[in-house]
Amino acid sequence: MIKKLTIFGVGLIGGSLALALKKANYCEQLVGCSRDEAHLKRAVELGVIDAYELQPEVAVRDADVVFLSVPMRAMESVMSKFKDGLAPEAIITDGGSSKASVVQAAKNVFGSVPERFVPAHPIAGRERSGVEAAFDSLYQDHKVILTPLKHTDTNAIDVVTGMWQAAGAEVATLGVEQHDSVLAATSHLPHVVAYALVDTLSETTFVDEIFQFAAGGFRDLSRIASSDPTMWSDICIENRTAILEMIESYTASLNRIKDMIENRDHRQLFETFEKSKTTRDSYVN
Amino acid sequence: MIKKLTIFGVGLIGGSLALALKKANYCEQLVGCSRDEAHLKRAVELGVIDAYELQPEVAVRDADVVFLSVPMRAMESVMSKFKDGLAPEAIITDGGSSKASVVQAAKNVFGSVPERFVPAHPIAGRERSGVEAAFDSLYQDHKVILTPLKHTDTNAIDVVTGMWQAAGAEVATLGVEQHDSVLAATSHLPHVVAYALVDTLSETTFVDEIFQFAAGGFRDLSRIASSDPTMWSDICIENRTAILEMIESYTASLNRIKDMIENRDHRQLFETFEKSKTTRDSYVN
Repeated sequence: MIKKLTIFGVGLIGGSLALALKKANYCEQLVGCSRDEAHLKRAVELGVIDAYELQPEVAVRDADVVFLSVPMRAMESVMSKFKDGLAPEAIITDGGSSKASVVQAAKNVFGSVPERFVPAHPIAGRERSGVEAAFDSLYQDHKVILTPLKHTDTNAIDVVTGMWQAAGAEVATLGVEQHDSVLAATSHLPHVVAYALVDTLSETTFVDEIFQFAAGGFRDLSRIASSDPTMWSDICIENRTAILEMIESYTASLNRIKDMIENRDHRQLFETFEKSKTTRDSYVN
Repeated sequence: MIKKLTIFGVGLIGGSLALALKKANYCEQLVGCSRDEAHLKRAVELGVIDAYELQPEVAVRDADVVFLSVPMRAMESVMSKFKDGLAPEAIITDGGSSKASVVQAAKNVFGSVPERFVPAHPIAGRERSGVEAAFDSLYQDHKVILTPLKHTDTNAIDVVTGMWQAAGAEVATLGVEQHDSVLAATSHLPHVVAYALVDTLSETTFVDEIFQFAAGGFRDLSRIASSDPTMWSDICIENRTAILEMIESYTASLNRIKDMIENRDHRQLFETFEKSKTTRDSYVN
């Protein structure tokens, strides 16, 4: 059980956590904080949070858990703003999509990464964003990856684990860098790939025909290009080291395929496609 | 109404057309032909075709319509094999994914493209292939693109149009080259993009973690990498001119995005992603 949870950024991610914890009766008091009062009022009206507070250092007062679901590049600024109001026993955790940058932000604010800071990342999302998009089963049967450091307090890890389990999620653990590489591969690169695909098609002289004759494959493939551009430009820059590495491998693979097509190398092209099919089929049913 | 339809290659595409026409009572006799007798027997057992024939020139005898749904690179060889058995009034049409290469194949076989040859492409497919995957509603509300030449017989176009409409499809017309460019963009490039993505990920040292933590976006994006590698290596080579052009534009777009990430150019990255989102949202709901 959590007595008071303070959520910074009550959008899809923070709002859905709040709703899930309410439904599970896991939290006595849910307080939201952001710079946008109208937005916070709306969150109270929708029953997502119990109350709101505009001053970060007041919002965290007596909170046993503080959850950060603000855009990646706002993490550091938000932490520095609530730092002085924090109770010594308070646990800080976040929902950011890249972990090295959040760990660095905590280091910058606190001098060293606090023992009771548990970096975390719920693997869930939708194209829609904002508090109106929040719903209580977003995390149901989804994974949440914790990336604790060596010195992270085990009790703090337990509390954050319990919170996510109460929200219906399955909790897993990875190293910070391992997380960032895995997510660059499974989530960040696919988004770049989809944005670039739509970008390419929109530059052609026959964009109307393209969408008129687009088949199901294209619809699926381009779906994530409808994701929030603010959030994704943010993530790409925050996790740039891992993402740039993945884009490079990807471009190399594309170039190999291009060469095979140019050389009409039917056998190699077939083998490459077959290997991809076999890999995917062995993991995804 | 069609009296006798001969189908070369009774797989997902040919088999589903047969089933749809049977259901619509649009065809008196459905004959299948391929090199694989066991496969043809199975098609008869499943009620997909009425009879089969192993000799191409015998299979087309008295056929009013001949439908080619063999792999792209087999088109020319199949046409040359049935050429001598064809009735003078017979209409030839096909289901190939690239049209310039089929038109060229017909030219090679017949000296010039027959007036009663109607190049066509049903925009429908599944990851699964083979006659077992065939079903009668595959073309329901899907588009079929005809790419007739200037001298193509209008009666032949009408017959092929009627056949596809009887199968539930909506018939549209494009020029041969226009078709190949549009399909390279909407279908062929997305397949290359998906195969390359899975190829890239399978080369990493953490492929197990990738698939363990893969989110919905990745699942959607990689779905078409489970498509038939024989068919897709074939299509890539047959439609290579248009596909190579698309891969080049795509790589250029990826490189622009890569540079923006490297330069931490938040504004440009946001604008690129936002433009893609706006484009997709305006066409796909």
